[in-house]
Amino acid sequence: MAIKEAVRPGGRSARVQEAVHQAVRELQTAKSREELSVPQIAHKAGVTPSTIYRRWGNLAELLADVSLERLHPDEEPPHTGSLASDLQAWGEHYLDEMTSPTGQCMLSDIMASAERERRQRCYRYNETIMACLRERAVMRGEATPSVEDLMDGVIAPMTYRLLYDLDTATSARLSRWIAQTLSSTDTPG
Amino acid sequence: MAIKEAVRPGGRSARVQEAVHQAVRELQTAKSREELSVPQIAHKAGVTPSTIYRRWGNLAELLADVSLERLHPDEEPPHTGSLASDLQAWGEHYLDEMTSPTGQCMLSDIMASAERERRQRCYRYNETIMACLRERAVMRGEATPSVEDLMDGVIAPMTYRLLYDLDTATSARLSRWIAQTLSSTDTPG
Repeated sequence: MAIKEAVRPGGRSARVQEAVHQAVRELQTAKSREELSVPQIAHKAGVTPSTIYRRWGNLAELLADVSLERLHPDEEPPHTGSLASDLQAWGEHYLDEMTSPTGQCMLSDIMASAERERRQRCYRYNETIMACLRERAVMRGEATPSVEDLMDGVIAPMTYRLLYDLDTATSARLSRWIAQTLSSTDTPG
Repeated sequence: MAIKEAVRPGGRSARVQEAVHQAVRELQTAKSREELSVPQIAHKAGVTPSTIYRRWGNLAELLADVSLERLHPDEEPPHTGSLASDLQAWGEHYLDEMTSPTGQCMLSDIMASAERERRQRCYRYNETIMACLRERAVMRGEATPSVEDLMDGVIAPMTYRLLYDLDTATSARLSRWIAQTLSSTDTPG
């Protein structure tokens, strides 16, 4: 099953998607992961369970889809004046979110999905953020590492520790990753 | 449920574990992930399904347990003469294994496990390897980064790309991560 994307806005398909996502988000605030079920979500969303099975396959894929949508960056990270401080501000916010129980659930849902494409989408989200922060720095005339080096030097250790060794996903370490990644840059632009 | 560890070697518990793991490994060579079931594994291992449910909870946790055991490093990485080449040799072997369909299944099984402890165990395995390679380099009098920096600079981007952007988990990039991590070291030992 390929991930359904670009449903026509306002069409029936988009309305079903929005109703089902909304039902999941509401149920998630009241119930634990183990208590959620497809019939319950369908009931709340006003659709039949078979609509959900047809579209998402199973509960795990539906939850992964909802989590992925939550991870979609919806606004530009705040401007703070330098690449280092932009990375730190955005990264601290991201760590805050992802070390919370909700954030940890989102990560688990996406990792549990059988669709590699969802993980790749997460990669692209972060790549978009890094490209945006880098572009600002280039405009200011700062020396900047490539987007790829920002992914390897900042996003990779952050994500690795969020997934594998949560207690070490801290803002102090984030500062260190940023400093190390920026210090290996010696040419502007 | 805590991960069962340190079962008494030769005891009934250890024999059950070995028989069940062995049954999973054999069935995995012949069947797809979707075709595996607890009753089938129990039958092959000569135990009752309830023995498996009691011990592992469900199929996902059993598969994660088997995958984790496979990831346990069972021998010292080859000696190649320098930290850079030791890292490259070990890392290429690891990438080979983890980019294969079997390796990708192992990673997915562990990521799908509800037990954070399993992921932490993976972290410790890689930490042990990094500490071993670093120790050799220290003995040779080479300048070495800390184990933590090796985790962030080499293991993190490798794992991040294996999970999120498989096509970019390559040995050429590995060389680059190693060079960047070693170049930020300026004091010996």
